[in-house]
Amino acid sequence: MENMTFVLFGATGDLAKRKIYPALYNLYLDGKLPQSISVIGLGRTPLSSEDLQAQIHEALNEFSRRDVLRDNVQDFLNKFRYFIFDAMKEESYENLRAFMEEREAELGIPDNRLFYLSVAPRLIDNIVKQLDASGISRTGGWRRLIVEKPFGTDLASARELNASLKEVFVEEEIYRIDHYLGKPMVQNIESLIRPNPILQALWDHKQISNVQITASETVGVGSRASYYDKAGAIRDMVQNHLLQLVMMTAVHHERKLTSDQIEQKKREIMESINPVSDEDLQNNIIRGQYQAGVVSGKAVKGYQDEDGVEDDSTNDTFFAAKLCINNEHWSGIPFYIRTGKRMDQKSTRIVIEFKQDSDAEKDVGIVSNLLVIEINPNESVSLRVNVADHSSEKFEPTYIGFSKHPGHQPEAYERLLYDGMIGDSTFFAHWHEVELSWEWVQPILDAFANDEAPLHTYPAGSTGPDASHELIERDGFEWN
Amino acid sequence: MENMTFVLFGATGDLAKRKIYPALYNLYLDGKLPQSISVIGLGRTPLSSEDLQAQIHEALNEFSRRDVLRDNVQDFLNKFRYFIFDAMKEESYENLRAFMEEREAELGIPDNRLFYLSVAPRLIDNIVKQLDASGISRTGGWRRLIVEKPFGTDLASARELNASLKEVFVEEEIYRIDHYLGKPMVQNIESLIRPNPILQALWDHKQISNVQITASETVGVGSRASYYDKAGAIRDMVQNHLLQLVMMTAVHHERKLTSDQIEQKKREIMESINPVSDEDLQNNIIRGQYQAGVVSGKAVKGYQDEDGVEDDSTNDTFFAAKLCINNEHWSGIPFYIRTGKRMDQKSTRIVIEFKQDSDAEKDVGIVSNLLVIEINPNESVSLRVNVADHSSEKFEPTYIGFSKHPGHQPEAYERLLYDGMIGDSTFFAHWHEVELSWEWVQPILDAFANDEAPLHTYPAGSTGPDASHELIERDGFEWN
Repeated sequence: MENMTFVLFGATGDLAKRKIYPALYNLYLDGKLPQSISVIGLGRTPLSSEDLQAQIHEALNEFSRRDVLRDNVQDFLNKFRYFIFDAMKEESYENLRAFMEEREAELGIPDNRLFYLSVAPRLIDNIVKQLDASGISRTGGWRRLIVEKPFGTDLASARELNASLKEVFVEEEIYRIDHYLGKPMVQNIESLIRPNPILQALWDHKQISNVQITASETVGVGSRASYYDKAGAIRDMVQNHLLQLVMMTAVHHERKLTSDQIEQKKREIMESINPVSDEDLQNNIIRGQYQAGVVSGKAVKGYQDEDGVEDDSTNDTFFAAKLCINNEHWSGIPFYIRTGKRMDQKSTRIVIEFKQDSDAEKDVGIVSNLLVIEINPNESVSLRVNVADHSSEKFEPTYIGFSKHPGHQPEAYERLLYDGMIGDSTFFAHWHEVELSWEWVQPILDAFANDEAPLHTYPAGSTGPDASHELIERDGFEWN
Repeated sequence: MENMTFVLFGATGDLAKRKIYPALYNLYLDGKLPQSISVIGLGRTPLSSEDLQAQIHEALNEFSRRDVLRDNVQDFLNKFRYFIFDAMKEESYENLRAFMEEREAELGIPDNRLFYLSVAPRLIDNIVKQLDASGISRTGGWRRLIVEKPFGTDLASARELNASLKEVFVEEEIYRIDHYLGKPMVQNIESLIRPNPILQALWDHKQISNVQITASETVGVGSRASYYDKAGAIRDMVQNHLLQLVMMTAVHHERKLTSDQIEQKKREIMESINPVSDEDLQNNIIRGQYQAGVVSGKAVKGYQDEDGVEDDSTNDTFFAAKLCINNEHWSGIPFYIRTGKRMDQKSTRIVIEFKQDSDAEKDVGIVSNLLVIEINPNESVSLRVNVADHSSEKFEPTYIGFSKHPGHQPEAYERLLYDGMIGDSTFFAHWHEVELSWEWVQPILDAFANDEAPLHTYPAGSTGPDASHELIERDGFEWN
């Protein structure tokens, strides 16, 4: 891995503390950082580098998945410098450039520069312009830009944001983080399917009856109400994470694909998804909002009564949809997606349901075969098969797991930061995917904004609105 | 289940004690005997019914898979009567008829009669004739004949034996026992495949590269030398058990098949197997004989030095072959079969090997997928898949089992006796299969008898002759 400078915009923020510093430390423990790296944390708060290092140390103690080792933590912290920075002030960039070059000279690092933007989206346009104007991003080595979500709030704003980035960076230099793509089981789909021809053979519309992707939470809107009440589940979860999971599930891995090939396939998949029609908005798109209920035995408020939420809010805390990918592999196979807050369980999973014989004897307990990829909070892959129970002459559905010892897996941010540092964009969201996702979502945003789609309610702690069950039961399936 | 008389020819024999009585007792424990059953044991030894009951009790104590319960064993034993019988004497049959009818009257049992022939094959012709002549087999109810192996010693003798049976019984009344068909995992193939469409999809020449059926023993010829030195592995194991396993593996179970349909499919499979050519005899048929060696750490004699074996015997204690089923499902997929005594391990299993991508990365540990059906001594079904190990970036072959708790399964004889009593011939060897098996085997018998095929040797405790490995390696596979 090449030596580099890692410039972190938003060094005192929550994401940096919870995810970025712990990820960098765990990469350090695994010997996966460049031999020489200058990490420059930027923020408006006046701090010394020692202050930042102390904050990082504290963050590691709290959030690192592995214990902080007294022996080496100072060596790790020494890589970090703090730089007081105001993203709106031109002189900040001039000074940053001098500071960065000084560190490069000190450490003998070539001008490979990774810019990590963990900042409010409204700042990005100016940051990018100034990186260019100041010469910071005009490097003799490589330069890369990692951008955190949200990537726009609708199709127009996403295009605008992208246009800003493209004024200075080319697509190959832009790494849009969708941390669902960093999750071990999402990354494992390829290494599950490709080396196992028996699974490749099953990964097809001849064998599969439907695909179900669920991301349910038990928590409510919490302290994010002011953001969430404007975003809704569709911006918070669907446009990015769920559609990325749809793409990752639908990609075929007959052979090892390059990052470019995967990007191309994902783009083709998004292009093959039927646009949302007026009829879809009535029947195949379910907007839901939780009401008071009981979660894990505890009574909780309804959404409209949460602090920071408008009393008459029609915001979606639940979303479900049926969509179809019209390509050679998936034509005729419905994909059902759903996500919600205040559901009965916390679970992110992909369930591939296989076709069942029409004459299957359900009275002896035969159920459809499933491939279940559990992404969160458990990480596992299992097949549901029917196993004969000879004492009763019936069949019992049995889940057989693909891994005996899942063990400690690197976290999403470790994988993504590492990929960013080595320049592998496989597990990042590429522009065409993002744009096509917004294009698919836009009519839904419009309909929700104009209240042209039904708003279904569900009690907190339930499996969502009845309409979500009707959506899938209409086709003869049920949520698994 | 209808009440009946069960007439056991060979009531004091080894098979009766080891298998038939324990099977009947375990069926009794499971409530799977007819409410009223008259079991008449026949033998030449003068014994009283109480003597027989005492012998049965002793046999149960020694061989029953479940403990003998003091509370109910006498009720079970009371069903048995002993009758002194000489199969060659006409008057034995007259007397048996009277004895049987008396018992039927006493118990109020209709004349449903099951005849179980566990006797020397040379007696069968006369027994069947006399059953008819005496009127014993002319019942108002049903009559069934269960015949133990061996069913002939070559094609001609098998046809002769069958002709004898057919003089009195029709095919539907004849139940030829092949106890491999009673083994739980063999019976389970259908209940494994049919309810699981994902396995049906894989059970095909598009996905499978080859099938391997192994039945290896660690024991030598033991006390059966005088029989075995004439029979060889080919009569002892191949013509019956291994070819039945080939048929059971090759049957497709897309839907629930009737017994007749399974019989028909098995017949078609045997008809589709290429006859043995002269070239096969040189290259695709491996005759082997064990030499002195070490089994489980113990030095053992070579076959020719065993008591009761001719010094210059060329008898086969090992047999391997490659055969092809030329039908729509299996064309081009080799079936490799092998069996041997004094091998390195005791194992009967069917291994389905799936096609591997030609560009599979073997250097990262990717191996072919397997479906392994272990029949004996373990009973299990597992899939071998490649599971990614993220710490090493390699793959590890991992066997995932289809059943968590196999538990106590009924033994082969329990299943087969039960099926015989209810009149289900699914898991018996039907005449056409037996005849076709002998037809396939006959050229091999001839070649072995005339020493026109090579005789390979192997050290006791090994995996068989090198030629057996070359047989499969020539095609790019290896014994799994």
